[in-house]
Amino acid sequence: MPSPPSPALDASERARPEARFPEEAVIRIHLNASLLALALAGPALAETAAPGFPALEASQAAANAQPGPRSLPAHTVPVPQADVSPAAQALAAAPYRAPAWNANPPDDAGWRTLVAKLADGALPGLAKAREQLGVTMEATTVGGVKAFVLTSRAMPEAHRNQVIFNIHGGGYVYGPGESGTAEAMLMSALGGYRVIAVDYRMPPDAPYPAAMDDTMAAWRAVAAATDPRRIGVVGTSTGGGMALALMLRAKAEGVPLPAALAPGTPWADLTEVGDTYKTHEWLDNVLVSYSGYLTHAAKLYAAGHDMRDPQLSPIYGDLTGLPPAILTSGTRDLFLSNTVRTHRKLRRAGVEADLNVYEGLSHAQYLFDPAAPETKKVFGDITAFFDRHLAR
Amino acid sequence: MPSPPSPALDASERARPEARFPEEAVIRIHLNASLLALALAGPALAETAAPGFPALEASQAAANAQPGPRSLPAHTVPVPQADVSPAAQALAAAPYRAPAWNANPPDDAGWRTLVAKLADGALPGLAKAREQLGVTMEATTVGGVKAFVLTSRAMPEAHRNQVIFNIHGGGYVYGPGESGTAEAMLMSALGGYRVIAVDYRMPPDAPYPAAMDDTMAAWRAVAAATDPRRIGVVGTSTGGGMALALMLRAKAEGVPLPAALAPGTPWADLTEVGDTYKTHEWLDNVLVSYSGYLTHAAKLYAAGHDMRDPQLSPIYGDLTGLPPAILTSGTRDLFLSNTVRTHRKLRRAGVEADLNVYEGLSHAQYLFDPAAPETKKVFGDITAFFDRHLAR
Repeated sequence: MPSPPSPALDASERARPEARFPEEAVIRIHLNASLLALALAGPALAETAAPGFPALEASQAAANAQPGPRSLPAHTVPVPQADVSPAAQALAAAPYRAPAWNANPPDDAGWRTLVAKLADGALPGLAKAREQLGVTMEATTVGGVKAFVLTSRAMPEAHRNQVIFNIHGGGYVYGPGESGTAEAMLMSALGGYRVIAVDYRMPPDAPYPAAMDDTMAAWRAVAAATDPRRIGVVGTSTGGGMALALMLRAKAEGVPLPAALAPGTPWADLTEVGDTYKTHEWLDNVLVSYSGYLTHAAKLYAAGHDMRDPQLSPIYGDLTGLPPAILTSGTRDLFLSNTVRTHRKLRRAGVEADLNVYEGLSHAQYLFDPAAPETKKVFGDITAFFDRHLAR
Repeated sequence: MPSPPSPALDASERARPEARFPEEAVIRIHLNASLLALALAGPALAETAAPGFPALEASQAAANAQPGPRSLPAHTVPVPQADVSPAAQALAAAPYRAPAWNANPPDDAGWRTLVAKLADGALPGLAKAREQLGVTMEATTVGGVKAFVLTSRAMPEAHRNQVIFNIHGGGYVYGPGESGTAEAMLMSALGGYRVIAVDYRMPPDAPYPAAMDDTMAAWRAVAAATDPRRIGVVGTSTGGGMALALMLRAKAEGVPLPAALAPGTPWADLTEVGDTYKTHEWLDNVLVSYSGYLTHAAKLYAAGHDMRDPQLSPIYGDLTGLPPAILTSGTRDLFLSNTVRTHRKLRRAGVEADLNVYEGLSHAQYLFDPAAPETKKVFGDITAFFDRHLAR
């Protein structure tokens, strides 16, 4: 059963056992089943129980005494202790995000059922959080594409003529409709902005290029209605990758680019390439493994298209001419490599790019708890960056 | 036997099996012994051979189904593939850096012997590299402290009145005398600078505060001889931590600070706190584990002083008023947490701080191969940062 979300924004340092409105709308409905599995797996777990340094020193030295792949032993890593708030410690300690992380429905109908169930489960928490954060939301259409407009009650004068264009995450499968508005809400509330969140089509019903077509159509309309020098584009994970792909497509089609960009831990490479896809496997408790749902989602989205096409994997595109960008990741993020590869490629392309990596955070966890100090810092830093780059 | 270093600077993209003048003066004199151990360990290794995703999915889900520490399975990670040069791939593929990583001599004499042996082994490679890089070096004394002055033959006009003050790394034990001049040489060669490298005293002969006393005395003299607005301070690992501690001490003693700072993967926290001390254990092939030599070196250096004292662990100090800083780390670095915690703390203190994380690199590997493109990028970025902040 999903635990009822209960944001307590006035107690930002209090530890909290659960994320409340995960971007990927993941609720641990299978927790009881997992606990049962844990109990049953007792003897097997005992066998792999992590030995300490004295037991590992010699065997690890021997296993890594020749050039080649790195051999890692079974071991246990503690909940991060320093420069991590209690709220973020709770996120770091959380179990793997079942059932989302390794979802692999047998057919399209299975995907629709899973995605809808997770989306429905996220709505009450989002509604309550909007209320507590002082954000209103309206459904709308932008450039013929479904979207939401989120407006903060506390909007500074300097932001009144500015717009944030948000592209939600969720691996191209999770987060349809209102369920994909967590980041838009946080940006609106913590930055004091009007945010337009595009509700792009997704597989299995609409594979590539539907999501990019929708996002491009919406961007075209938004950039025509508001001076693009007053617009910042924000997206996390899949939304971060799409934000980068959108810049490439806008360049190609002669549509203006925004004044600044905030790709959070962007899925910049859909091919299984990137060091932390492997080094942070089993460590990141949100995505857990690239061999989980991500591989299936990438295939579902690409639907036969070349995954190295820069519209699917923007890391392979020409990033020259992109607007200044602020990037965010965490030390446990499966997509840390996506983030740092994008950062370095932007720099090489002559683009101002500011990298921020948070201690102890797994993938996109700065979206999970609006009261966590880390969440406030991430969106505070994006806002400060946008204040330097967006016209008023 | 140490393999003879042979820099081939004109073949920057060629893969190279070995680091040539590691900052910590580590040469794999025990390689043959390790290979023997590997052969002997055959059956044990087979038992721990890493299973793939299908075999791990259920057991890992079960082992991580409750809040708490993270359970990681034995697994193998490949050599990084994308956005990593062949030279850096060779560094990533290299065996653990025996005998340095887990050195634990039984007494002071044992430390002296080990450190001297590693230092001696590094000298021929350094001499040859200086020649190829067009850098000259002279021993000198600065503020009564032994030091080296390194000068590049190719010094741009804009750098003629500037000075780089370098503090070498090596865990407070490795890198005495000339053996600790690799970073100074790279900064001189790749940035086109005159670099003063302080040869501070180290344990076991001289524990804390000798190293900081020497560095402070040298800094006082350098900052008196050259307008500090024309000085950048550079240090990696232990040298990065000392650079931060030097800023705190200079503030406290009313001595001017430099115009900019480049702490590379700084040992900012000597207490065993920091997420990647644990999450990157066994992955980083340079430091490997905090329970290796680092724990012993920290104890030897602190000699009973509180390791949370900001002069030993500057992360606990007040970083307000520090000069703009550029920080460097890698996705496999055991000190990634040191680096990102320092970055965020500098930001919170209102200091301009620029974080750069390189794909696939372990601790300080940008010092290991002067011909690696990553080495050139790191020192190129530091130079560009200094060009923006140092007076001419």
